[in-house]
Amino acid sequence: MGYQHLMKRRHLLKGAITASTLTAMTLSHSYTPKSANAQSAEFRWRMVSRWDDQFPGQLVAARRLADRIAVMSAGRLIIDVLPPDEVVPFPETKTAVSDGTIEMSRSLSYDWRAQSPVLEVFMVLPYGFTQKEMSAWLYYLGGQELWDEAYAPFGVKAFPAGSLGAQSFGWFSNEINSLSDLQGLRFRTTGVAMDVMSKLGAAATTMGRTEIGQAFQAGELDGFELGGPLVDMQYGLHVLGAPYYYFPSYNQPSGLVELVVNRAQYEALPTDLQQIIEIAAQAEYEQGLAEANFGNAQALNTLVNQHQVQVRQLPPDVLTALGNASGEVIADMRSNGNEMMQQTIDSFLSARQLLKAWSQVSEQNYLNARGLDFTYG
Amino acid sequence: MGYQHLMKRRHLLKGAITASTLTAMTLSHSYTPKSANAQSAEFRWRMVSRWDDQFPGQLVAARRLADRIAVMSAGRLIIDVLPPDEVVPFPETKTAVSDGTIEMSRSLSYDWRAQSPVLEVFMVLPYGFTQKEMSAWLYYLGGQELWDEAYAPFGVKAFPAGSLGAQSFGWFSNEINSLSDLQGLRFRTTGVAMDVMSKLGAAATTMGRTEIGQAFQAGELDGFELGGPLVDMQYGLHVLGAPYYYFPSYNQPSGLVELVVNRAQYEALPTDLQQIIEIAAQAEYEQGLAEANFGNAQALNTLVNQHQVQVRQLPPDVLTALGNASGEVIADMRSNGNEMMQQTIDSFLSARQLLKAWSQVSEQNYLNARGLDFTYG
Repeated sequence: MGYQHLMKRRHLLKGAITASTLTAMTLSHSYTPKSANAQSAEFRWRMVSRWDDQFPGQLVAARRLADRIAVMSAGRLIIDVLPPDEVVPFPETKTAVSDGTIEMSRSLSYDWRAQSPVLEVFMVLPYGFTQKEMSAWLYYLGGQELWDEAYAPFGVKAFPAGSLGAQSFGWFSNEINSLSDLQGLRFRTTGVAMDVMSKLGAAATTMGRTEIGQAFQAGELDGFELGGPLVDMQYGLHVLGAPYYYFPSYNQPSGLVELVVNRAQYEALPTDLQQIIEIAAQAEYEQGLAEANFGNAQALNTLVNQHQVQVRQLPPDVLTALGNASGEVIADMRSNGNEMMQQTIDSFLSARQLLKAWSQVSEQNYLNARGLDFTYG
Repeated sequence: MGYQHLMKRRHLLKGAITASTLTAMTLSHSYTPKSANAQSAEFRWRMVSRWDDQFPGQLVAARRLADRIAVMSAGRLIIDVLPPDEVVPFPETKTAVSDGTIEMSRSLSYDWRAQSPVLEVFMVLPYGFTQKEMSAWLYYLGGQELWDEAYAPFGVKAFPAGSLGAQSFGWFSNEINSLSDLQGLRFRTTGVAMDVMSKLGAAATTMGRTEIGQAFQAGELDGFELGGPLVDMQYGLHVLGAPYYYFPSYNQPSGLVELVVNRAQYEALPTDLQQIIEIAAQAEYEQGLAEANFGNAQALNTLVNQHQVQVRQLPPDVLTALGNASGEVIADMRSNGNEMMQQTIDSFLSARQLLKAWSQVSEQNYLNARGLDFTYG
């Protein structure tokens, strides 16, 4: 239908209609062109970035996203990228996007958990999705629809638009050899991980990234976690005097970065600009995970080979206990939340079960095999 | 510069210049608008898909890519998607893109290894990159530049534009318990895997997908591999009578799908349409891997629970021997090829070493931890 209309509109285009072209028509798409008027409208928008330029990569990523949108739209949609706290204090950003003061933010769904706890599920949960599993949930197993529903009361829509990559479990003064080493451990972390660690007897506490160094050097902390190798090195966590760098992050195997857009303003855009925003965000999601993997791989190499950081793995009994505690925390979220939370956690758990079985057979199995002792290259 | 120009051009747009906006200017981009003339040009292109509609997902993905480009370009770039063998026999597709008979193909770089063996490196190599590592190599460690160089003699440019996801090691009549079980094993596979399996004493053979069933049921094969669960189930490999389904695919932990574009025609496009093609392809790359993971997870679940397929893991000594043999094959490729091959394999090996160390600490470590026995959900 839309396609037939397009065929007529384009009958002057080069190339005769051949048998091949006719076959192609049956294979092709259902594009419906907008009016020329809508196509020539111009827009100037603003995007608040959660991260300032001290944080590796993420403000650069926001600018890259804006640049791509500017180029793809031939300048019809120009987005000024603002650091956090420029227009309003960052915690009020979603309200500003919600009421249309600014049109967009590039942030973490987790940032808005005070306003709506269910939003945390759309970034990462302890022992939850890898980033690739998150994509499968969002696109094919109902995740995006639930996310849209969770954001609907705020009048905004979110798109996947980047990734933090994998984080560490943290930096520690002493080795962690058993569960008893977590008893009373004074540990800086954040969010859901505080609940999980508390269940295992740790003295979990939170503080800003600049306070970590002071607290640790004042003897008030036994360990702390912030990000992955790239972020941790940028903030100098490797020179604070905690020699043991523990993995994996049961808590943040990855972390989805979102683009939140004022829904009314988004829907008022011509279809081509709507699609440009959505696809540019999706491409940045792919780009961002690659960038995080590259940056973390380089930083890990530097930390180990130049700074003599000692990389350690958590022992199985600690990982198992963290798994049980994480399961309890998720179950608490489900039963203490509202109907939307229950529905979202159920969808998450069901998708996780399906995708985990495949990840075990394919990715996990492959990575373990590749780690065997053989000569290569 | 470009940005300043744009600022002047857009001085009539809504919104006063505030302190915030001025700050934003220093954060923003370097977009240079094209002339209005270039922006209104219209193009009708053709894209050959390597896969027909019998193959799960990939022809649909090609159409989705064309649709997205049509919508983002507001109908200025319409791409007709053609199945393989429509214009020329599929093996001649790259020549057709090269000489401009058709403008694009969505294919595997490996398809053109007869014309240029180095191209195989840009899809997947045995015990090589996971898909996420491939992205990091392409975008940040020189992979895309080498790929461009490898394709330059053909007058084409390639973009990542999809993924096959992880494959299986294959289907077998009998269990594989040790290396001796590979001796004389009549096994259908393809490409580099034939060399690797032959080094371990298997009787590796190749044949088309429709011949596999006939050969197996005539007693001429002991095992065969084609794709992952989704593809294998689509082609009915699970009902041929080989009960054991082995993982991991040391050989194809994933597989990059490329979009090959005639370079001269690409460069003749206005900048906005060039960027639309590149970003739409990158978004489809992310979409395709998610789709492969979703489809394979569902198919594996069906195979195991409805068809009683027995999933097995290759034993460590077999995986180690496959690693050594793969290493030899890669080394042979490096030393028997030309300078371009040597340079590309060196870049691949160096990126693999860096990225593998990070994948072990993060992804592998996480997946193993998540697989421990704990209660969750």
